[in-house]
Amino acid sequence: MPVVRPRPLSRVLLFSLVPVASWFILRPLLEPLPSIPALYSSIGFSIFAFLATIYLVPALGPTFIKARLSGRDLLKVYDSKIPREETLIPESLGLVCASIYILSLILFIPFAFTTPILEQINGKKPQQGITVVEFPHYQLSVYLSSLLSLLVATILGFLDDVFDIRWRHKLPIPIIASIPLLMVYYAEHGNTNVVVPLPLRFIFGTLINLGPLYYVYMSLLSTFSTNSINILAGINGSETSQALIIALSVILNDLLYLPWPIGFRIPLHLLGNHTELEFGGVWSAGMAHGSRELVERHLFSLYFMLPLVACRPHVLNCRYPARAFPGDTLCYVTGMAFAVVGIQAHFSKTLLLFFIPQIFNFLLSCPQLFGLVPCPRHRVPRFDADTNLLHPSKASEIQFPKPPTKLTTIVLHTLSLLGLTELVKDPNTGVITNSTNLTILNVFLLRFGPMNEKRLVQVLICSQVCIYITTVNCVGSLNPAFQIAGSLLAFFIRYGLAGLIYDGDRR
Amino acid sequence: MPVVRPRPLSRVLLFSLVPVASWFILRPLLEPLPSIPALYSSIGFSIFAFLATIYLVPALGPTFIKARLSGRDLLKVYDSKIPREETLIPESLGLVCASIYILSLILFIPFAFTTPILEQINGKKPQQGITVVEFPHYQLSVYLSSLLSLLVATILGFLDDVFDIRWRHKLPIPIIASIPLLMVYYAEHGNTNVVVPLPLRFIFGTLINLGPLYYVYMSLLSTFSTNSINILAGINGSETSQALIIALSVILNDLLYLPWPIGFRIPLHLLGNHTELEFGGVWSAGMAHGSRELVERHLFSLYFMLPLVACRPHVLNCRYPARAFPGDTLCYVTGMAFAVVGIQAHFSKTLLLFFIPQIFNFLLSCPQLFGLVPCPRHRVPRFDADTNLLHPSKASEIQFPKPPTKLTTIVLHTLSLLGLTELVKDPNTGVITNSTNLTILNVFLLRFGPMNEKRLVQVLICSQVCIYITTVNCVGSLNPAFQIAGSLLAFFIRYGLAGLIYDGDRR
Repeated sequence: MPVVRPRPLSRVLLFSLVPVASWFILRPLLEPLPSIPALYSSIGFSIFAFLATIYLVPALGPTFIKARLSGRDLLKVYDSKIPREETLIPESLGLVCASIYILSLILFIPFAFTTPILEQINGKKPQQGITVVEFPHYQLSVYLSSLLSLLVATILGFLDDVFDIRWRHKLPIPIIASIPLLMVYYAEHGNTNVVVPLPLRFIFGTLINLGPLYYVYMSLLSTFSTNSINILAGINGSETSQALIIALSVILNDLLYLPWPIGFRIPLHLLGNHTELEFGGVWSAGMAHGSRELVERHLFSLYFMLPLVACRPHVLNCRYPARAFPGDTLCYVTGMAFAVVGIQAHFSKTLLLFFIPQIFNFLLSCPQLFGLVPCPRHRVPRFDADTNLLHPSKASEIQFPKPPTKLTTIVLHTLSLLGLTELVKDPNTGVITNSTNLTILNVFLLRFGPMNEKRLVQVLICSQVCIYITTVNCVGSLNPAFQIAGSLLAFFIRYGLAGLIYDGDRR
Repeated sequence: MPVVRPRPLSRVLLFSLVPVASWFILRPLLEPLPSIPALYSSIGFSIFAFLATIYLVPALGPTFIKARLSGRDLLKVYDSKIPREETLIPESLGLVCASIYILSLILFIPFAFTTPILEQINGKKPQQGITVVEFPHYQLSVYLSSLLSLLVATILGFLDDVFDIRWRHKLPIPIIASIPLLMVYYAEHGNTNVVVPLPLRFIFGTLINLGPLYYVYMSLLSTFSTNSINILAGINGSETSQALIIALSVILNDLLYLPWPIGFRIPLHLLGNHTELEFGGVWSAGMAHGSRELVERHLFSLYFMLPLVACRPHVLNCRYPARAFPGDTLCYVTGMAFAVVGIQAHFSKTLLLFFIPQIFNFLLSCPQLFGLVPCPRHRVPRFDADTNLLHPSKASEIQFPKPPTKLTTIVLHTLSLLGLTELVKDPNTGVITNSTNLTILNVFLLRFGPMNEKRLVQVLICSQVCIYITTVNCVGSLNPAFQIAGSLLAFFIRYGLAGLIYDGDRR
């Protein structure tokens, strides 16, 4: 295949978007004030982040190659006449995206507090009874602790790229990174109750107070979301597209809680649902039911998700054929961003629904992660250069170094019965001598047969959407917001996104 | 000279210090409660940070060399029989110190708020009139914004180590990193007044309100302190020892504001001063004059400075002959830590007094930084391998690429008159053709003649102390705290620290 280079930013895009973005950023300073001034600035900063990403990623590629942060794409065939240096693809470019993302969030801080700042300057401190409304310190600490966790994730990801840290060394760090989040949650007397699922209510009642266990749950949530995208990486575009879908789902979910200036009704019955949702009016959006707190939480989530999606044009360079590798940095930061909004905006359980494919992949990987089955350094599918197809990869190159224990045998047989792995057995003794790697990508290849890299990412994305729709039908009654998000996503991805993530057929 | 390796941690130290540190950390949970419980935990975490640093720095050296973060010490002579790989010294190990420092600060967050947390758990919310004292959100956001700035400095420093960023590209980042600090300062209705120096009072009055300019000043302060230590680097131990001295000065200054459980009097007259200082009693320390706010600010500063000093055993490996290089990361993080405490604990002007040698070095460097005089990539003194002595280095290798402008000629002549540079002139025309690099280290070599690397660091440290003492006599009446700090430091460094920073004479 030919050598590909990152794509530079077109000048037309640059000159047309800069004034638009500037207007959005400055909108909160212009009369008449919109009802949510900070949202305009957030959109403005996201557009700038978008421009900065598509300008800097191609521009900094050579710098990364010079600093030896580069590698060859192992799942491609290159013409042997092209020298090796020319086929090097810059790695860890997610660092650029992460830096732009975090810097734009930092620059946004003063704008997030436009309303209290303007009130202070104009001396119009709103008085309510005997209480003087002071600066919202609590919201500031929510914002700062979130940024802190994102920065720790960035550092961890980049260190992983540079030093290739062993996973048991890096496991505790997201837990430590989540301490500021938990501290802020505690300072607000955060809710530690969970709603008990219907079948268990006769034992535990409707609500159960987990107390300190809830903090453990949140801490593990950040560890999970940080690592789960990373272990589903390995083929061109898989990390970026997964993250993009989750981020868009979160944004859709947030939008349902916003105070829309006009009233409208979503015709849910067209999507096969019986409930109807009505929206409209400042502080009286459909899902927020007039709660200012709920609106503010989802605004917070939007402020973090909009620039995250904006830093995603990177997907243009990561998609098949990859012009740049995102590296662990991007996976870590994106995962942490999801954990942050899930915890701080109090929808961690909804968030987990968006992570179903990752949860499945993690559970499937457990036997390898915890040492029951041998785990090679990379578990990406095996590439057949002759046919340009991917095949399921094996856990050991030839066979397991020692015969599997009883527990391993039982686990592998169960997974094999479920069609999630393929076993190689000794024809004489019947002892398992090898198995395919336990990843969702290998499962696709087992079920649907060998396919090329581009098709495999498409299958991954479609499966994510299908799982959403299935979940929608199961838990729809619990969370209508999720339901709409899932349904709209299905249409959007099917018709809109596919072209964005994939080139024309240029395999 | 022989090949040196980082020194491992002695087991005796490990086993004796771990229980001590654990007791300190857990002390706030034991009855009777001390008056400042969090200070105990801070000391405990600092001891752990100390142990972690002296364990991890030697242990991770090979990993850094493997990741190609290593270099040869340019100011040493090695036996030509030793292969090059053996003489490589790991670089950027400041990253390890910075990570330990920041992680220990994050772990400390819950302990910093022991008092409000214990009050919430015991349900003893202190009621004052009609106001319920809530969780101190403001202090939490002060703490979080400080950590945020430190993390940005860490990332910036490490990127500088990996990518060698040009200085005009990295200049704006500390300014962006200071936004959270400024936002928190603003949220607290921070003071923007400055006391006018005596000679100017007839024009401006006693106090002048700088308004937004004060924010510009604080933003530049963080940029200055981040870069100023870095531009004084280059010889074994210069970065670490400078930073250690400043940190100890800040700690001494803080200690004077603490509520000592016993009353005592410092015999200042022995140090040649006329005022007397009395200390004692909770919330009524000598310098705090009973102000709880002042005490809390200086406690905050202590919480950030104690682990910073604790991460400094690194000095053991960086001192002459260097066993590890700290890299830009350490300089950036340390500099940012000083800016953070200066801004958040409201003693930025006192802090600048501690930075006098760095300010002098910066002002001296300006003609090179701003392009009046050619500026080579490294401005370290020139090493003469035959005599093992350092000589002043020249700005250009042979001569200036083009004749100096009028302004440059005036500046260089002035500096030469002041004895701060040595000029090379064309014997026929009298035009300046070369000059020594404009750094404080070169000035020492010019004034005191060529000396070896170890002696040069000693001179640097002594000069720092001498400048302190001189300043003490000039501004002593303005800030007695600084005065005592300076005087005690002089004794401490003279008799105590010299042995710590220097090996026996093993040149």
